[in-house]
Amino acid sequence: MTTRADGRADDELRPITFTRGFTSHPAGSVLVEFGDTRVMCTASVTEGVPPWRRGSGLGWLTAEYAMLPSSTHERSSRESVKGRVGGRTHEISRLVGRSLRACIDLAALGENTIAVDCDVLQADGGTRTAAITGAYIALADAVTYLKAAGRLKDPQPLSCMIAAVSVGVVDGRVRLDLPYEEDSRAEVDMNVVATDAGTLVEVQGTGEGATFPRATLDKLLDIAMVGTDKLFEAQREVLAEPYPGTLPTGS
Amino acid sequence: MTTRADGRADDELRPITFTRGFTSHPAGSVLVEFGDTRVMCTASVTEGVPPWRRGSGLGWLTAEYAMLPSSTHERSSRESVKGRVGGRTHEISRLVGRSLRACIDLAALGENTIAVDCDVLQADGGTRTAAITGAYIALADAVTYLKAAGRLKDPQPLSCMIAAVSVGVVDGRVRLDLPYEEDSRAEVDMNVVATDAGTLVEVQGTGEGATFPRATLDKLLDIAMVGTDKLFEAQREVLAEPYPGTLPTGS
Amino acid sequence: MTTRADGRADDELRPITFTRGFTSHPAGSVLVEFGDTRVMCTASVTEGVPPWRRGSGLGWLTAEYAMLPSSTHERSSRESVKGRVGGRTHEISRLVGRSLRACIDLAALGENTIAVDCDVLQADGGTRTAAITGAYIALADAVTYLKAAGRLKDPQPLSCMIAAVSVGVVDGRVRLDLPYEEDSRAEVDMNVVATDAGTLVEVQGTGEGATFPRATLDKLLDIAMVGTDKLFEAQREVLAEPYPGTLPTGS
Amino acid sequence: MTTRADGRADDELRPITFTRGFTSHPAGSVLVEFGDTRVMCTASVTEGVPPWRRGSGLGWLTAEYAMLPSSTHERSSRESVKGRVGGRTHEISRLVGRSLRACIDLAALGENTIAVDCDVLQADGGTRTAAITGAYIALADAVTYLKAAGRLKDPQPLSCMIAAVSVGVVDGRVRLDLPYEEDSRAEVDMNVVATDAGTLVEVQGTGEGATFPRATLDKLLDIAMVGTDKLFEAQREVLAEPYPGTLPTGS
Amino acid sequence: MTTRADGRADDELRPITFTRGFTSHPAGSVLVEFGDTRVMCTASVTEGVPPWRRGSGLGWLTAEYAMLPSSTHERSSRESVKGRVGGRTHEISRLVGRSLRACIDLAALGENTIAVDCDVLQADGGTRTAAITGAYIALADAVTYLKAAGRLKDPQPLSCMIAAVSVGVVDGRVRLDLPYEEDSRAEVDMNVVATDAGTLVEVQGTGEGATFPRATLDKLLDIAMVGTDKLFEAQREVLAEPYPGTLPTGS
Amino acid sequence: MTTRADGRADDELRPITFTRGFTSHPAGSVLVEFGDTRVMCTASVTEGVPPWRRGSGLGWLTAEYAMLPSSTHERSSRESVKGRVGGRTHEISRLVGRSLRACIDLAALGENTIAVDCDVLQADGGTRTAAITGAYIALADAVTYLKAAGRLKDPQPLSCMIAAVSVGVVDGRVRLDLPYEEDSRAEVDMNVVATDAGTLVEVQGTGEGATFPRATLDKLLDIAMVGTDKLFEAQREVLAEPYPGTLPTGS
Repeated sequence: MTTRADGRADDELRPITFTRGFTSHPAGSVLVEFGDTRVMCTASVTEGVPPWRRGSGLGWLTAEYAMLPSSTHERSSRESVKGRVGGRTHEISRLVGRSLRACIDLAALGENTIAVDCDVLQADGGTRTAAITGAYIALADAVTYLKAAGRLKDPQPLSCMIAAVSVGVVDGRVRLDLPYEEDSRAEVDMNVVATDAGTLVEVQGTGEGATFPRATLDKLLDIAMVGTDKLFEAQREVLAEPYPGTLPTGS
Repeated sequence: MTTRADGRADDELRPITFTRGFTSHPAGSVLVEFGDTRVMCTASVTEGVPPWRRGSGLGWLTAEYAMLPSSTHERSSRESVKGRVGGRTHEISRLVGRSLRACIDLAALGENTIAVDCDVLQADGGTRTAAITGAYIALADAVTYLKAAGRLKDPQPLSCMIAAVSVGVVDGRVRLDLPYEEDSRAEVDMNVVATDAGTLVEVQGTGEGATFPRATLDKLLDIAMVGTDKLFEAQREVLAEPYPGTLPTGS
Repeated sequence: MTTRADGRADDELRPITFTRGFTSHPAGSVLVEFGDTRVMCTASVTEGVPPWRRGSGLGWLTAEYAMLPSSTHERSSRESVKGRVGGRTHEISRLVGRSLRACIDLAALGENTIAVDCDVLQADGGTRTAAITGAYIALADAVTYLKAAGRLKDPQPLSCMIAAVSVGVVDGRVRLDLPYEEDSRAEVDMNVVATDAGTLVEVQGTGEGATFPRATLDKLLDIAMVGTDKLFEAQREVLAEPYPGTLPTGS
Repeated sequence: MTTRADGRADDELRPITFTRGFTSHPAGSVLVEFGDTRVMCTASVTEGVPPWRRGSGLGWLTAEYAMLPSSTHERSSRESVKGRVGGRTHEISRLVGRSLRACIDLAALGENTIAVDCDVLQADGGTRTAAITGAYIALADAVTYLKAAGRLKDPQPLSCMIAAVSVGVVDGRVRLDLPYEEDSRAEVDMNVVATDAGTLVEVQGTGEGATFPRATLDKLLDIAMVGTDKLFEAQREVLAEPYPGTLPTGS
Repeated sequence: MTTRADGRADDELRPITFTRGFTSHPAGSVLVEFGDTRVMCTASVTEGVPPWRRGSGLGWLTAEYAMLPSSTHERSSRESVKGRVGGRTHEISRLVGRSLRACIDLAALGENTIAVDCDVLQADGGTRTAAITGAYIALADAVTYLKAAGRLKDPQPLSCMIAAVSVGVVDGRVRLDLPYEEDSRAEVDMNVVATDAGTLVEVQGTGEGATFPRATLDKLLDIAMVGTDKLFEAQREVLAEPYPGTLPTGS
Repeated sequence: MTTRADGRADDELRPITFTRGFTSHPAGSVLVEFGDTRVMCTASVTEGVPPWRRGSGLGWLTAEYAMLPSSTHERSSRESVKGRVGGRTHEISRLVGRSLRACIDLAALGENTIAVDCDVLQADGGTRTAAITGAYIALADAVTYLKAAGRLKDPQPLSCMIAAVSVGVVDGRVRLDLPYEEDSRAEVDMNVVATDAGTLVEVQGTGEGATFPRATLDKLLDIAMVGTDKLFEAQREVLAEPYPGTLPTGS
């Protein structure tokens, strides 16, 4: 049996850690680590919504994902300097936003905007799935903050938990949570976003220069859901701790 | 039983047509229609490859997708005028490129570049899947052209056929090939890119403001593959006709 | 006597066709063909005018011209991807807008905006003149649509018809409606926009690496006006047919 | 008879002055004044040509036109700050370049590039025609400079002189060299670029919210050529003076 | 003793001239010359302030600095064409704005905006200090204009005069007002913005590939203040002349 | 005596920490903290230099500074999304680059490029001075890395240490290392970059809506140099520890 370079079993996650209150200005700020992948996820709240949504009574949630230039193995150029956001960045920002909007009731949020930022400090595969998983914690903290401030229309706008994980076929084996070394040579690569209610939010599977039978898709999903279950456990554990800063006293 | 607005069965495609030789400058030019969705797909060939690939002996294939401003129900603004390509456009361009690269052997292509353009003339849902399905025909014509010109390293660079279809859950029912009217209120939306060998290239499923159980994913895939099978038939039929222009006489 | 490559007389137009109702979302949609040059011209209507014009009681008409990347002999790059509109594109967009505004009474239009889009599907010389000539038909259809919808202030905002044609000196001869093969080696090149009342809207004549005597200008204008007269006939004929879609029932 | 606000006859130019050697870094630098319109025209020379032209033995000439923000009656915004060059700027830059290329033999120039810049310091109508007329003097000086430096392939690359003037119909009268006050309410507006050999380089006539009979076009051309003849005289006079700086001593 | 190439003493300014009323559209327009460095400085006034400042009763002052492409020894590319403002341009624009805001009482200005533009016609070192010194005169003229128009809240919004000068260490000597030839090889370079009350507004000193002891900083400041004192004299002299245009008659 | 909100003496720094090896891909990676201001400073090395420097035998060092959107009290927008780098960002990036180039011998570096990135994770005043001080440590680590890899021309390219600190006048008192709360209401603000040899690299002092006498400048410099001396101590201490990763074994 081929073992993985880091000694993990095929269906084993890398060590997962969440550091809540990583920075102090945003209402939610979490450093998430999936092994050597480290993403700073924040959720900033503002009163009001974009003009096209005003008066609807509904809130809004946006998300932006980006990689710091020095986060990759070889330094990559800064998108602000290039003057345009690349296709991959755009795509992942949209994915993070869609995934988080699946768990929040925007009517309960009221006319508040939550801006989620996922900035990759260090990349070692699975940055988008780490980003979604960490951003959920930041979002939960931001909701706690809004609730304490008496700014929610309904006290529980979050209907479920959200986590995401990558799976893939590497060396002919179906594996969970690929680091860069595996990801870069995977034959099939899939990202799965799920809820703790056992349902799916997004499934994106791609043959990388190869195609794959439907049976492989099934195995990939099986193992992905093993992974998201463990992530929900880790999320629940860390959210059992109190809010990591000073909560406002609501009106 | 709820019937669809256009009278189709849940697992029925809209009328599909391919007009090969739709324009005459590109080596491959196809107008594809999935019902009222009309996409002009072209494959233009150039000698040589981008600088970073020179001397590798490998060819290259790129793809760009765009919607004409007047193609949508309400006119949308022109991305060239806004000065930036939007996230959705970026995302679909990348999807079309990846999908087509799954069927072509870039070594057999030799140091030639094929630029695929998918321009939506009229949008009525499923533009990305129509684009991929039509672009395959344009690509096949471009390959025929290169072969006639004696510019291929290997006479058969295409290893399989590629087609794509959308599926979704609408009114609680799993349905194939959604027009705009269904797409805009679908609870789940999935795009499947497949090969005529029965394998998958890309699977992208999204809950739109909702999440979905894995059983739904399975049903969506079942019906999607019914659709792609019919698309392969249609593609085979149209490709049985000779190349729609004048072929070069090779060196 | 030198004959033209396509057998036409010097003062003969290429075959001209207009396909009204080419697409169905815009109020006016016309495919115009001047020989192998094919331009999709649409006129989309929106209620209201840009902020700087609000409350004036006047309508507005804008125009944008663009070439699809695959429309040219060699594929050209996409302006949205380059992130800026080129000088030629800008220039022609402005010309189309000015030309059409010459025939419409913006007070009669009321506070409505008509956005004209001219997208070149296939280029073989004379794309800007075909665009203007076809866009007039799309504009006429949009006006019919607005009238039916009861949204015009005055029932007849169009004061005349507009058509445009290219003329040039090729092989020392003054010729009408140049295809790419002639245009690319013309010594003098002129575009004339005229009205069916016999007046001129725009005259743009350029010596291409050469200069020309005033007598040549006169001959070019003579032949241009032969051409626009024939174009007005063709326009009248096609507009004699009823509106190609379903008209709204006005308020 | 309606007299003009500034007392001129209908076919009279404003006072024209050329200040050669206006600045000292470029090989040619001229401040041209058409009444209150003042444009700084420079011609900078560089060895070599753009990559796509290398090895052809031919030189190249480019031109850029721009207005300083404070040159207009109301301050206009800076295009560098807006991040894009506007349509009008683009259009005039192209016109200036085409006009000057009509008088220069690029083979005689050898593989040198001349970059012409026309920056409007103060605008009072006719900025594009003043720019072309002044830029011709700057170009002539740059050619003298290159000749002295022994960098020309052929000693006389300029085949003729170039001047430009605006004409228009104002208050129903055909008038020469319109200041802003007339230009802004002209019914017809035409720019004519001519050579001292009596031939035309560019003719651009536009009905501004009106159309015009061909007879008007003829009268406009008559009066324009009266104007360009006077401009050639003024150019000849100023070029009779020696080069306004220190010439290099050729190799 | 090393003498300077232009024969000046180390603590001597280049010849300084101010041409007020250089152009006539802006309320203040000054051509400032520090030797061969020539900058056109204008101050344009508009009623009202940017949206974020409305209703505050305070005015606003912005500044933009730019170099014409032909102003430098070798032609530089146009920032509008490159589509972005460079770092140096940004930095100097901000410096000019901050410097001028130090002498104006924005409450006294009332809700008016003054837009200062400094466009370098010819660069020979010290363009930013010439720009600030000339812009002060343009600002003073704009204030005189606003006062005459009865648009100021308080008749004297300017609390002091502003001038700026460059100093540096060249050939081991501390020198005032460096031309390009000295500036390009200076070991230390400092720009000092001062008021005629003897106070400082900005001090920016930089070792260019070298560092400098604090004693040098002191000497640089000594000599800089000799320079600004002379500049204030020159400013006072030129402002003793009446406003160079027609003043409005206030309400 | 007014005490500072955080209890510090006027000439006291906030707690300073450096975390070397903060991330593992770049050759140098340091998290620097000046109180609550936290900046991730990295130094990435690449073989070769930009085209304009090739063959010179000299290396190159560039620097980019940026703030994460969530680093500020109120979330700020992302410059990549706005499509342009702001003036302040540009200015600080240039300052960081100039400051570090003052201590490195680019000939000794050989044809290698060091790209320094300073990304602000949390902003509480003094981000630019923290960035420079932390970046020096990252640079020192990158040099150690290059030396171990045998890629330096000369073993000691660093000629001195670099540190920077902010000083200002707040509440009428001269104070060291201003947090946001003081910085935002400072009357005078100065940033000083110094070397451990006691010389200065950059001095940038600005009156914020006020001007300041030269005596204040002197006091500001006195206190700044107290601060940089303490920073050099801290830097020396942390650099006394071994390189925080695995060094390459040189050729």
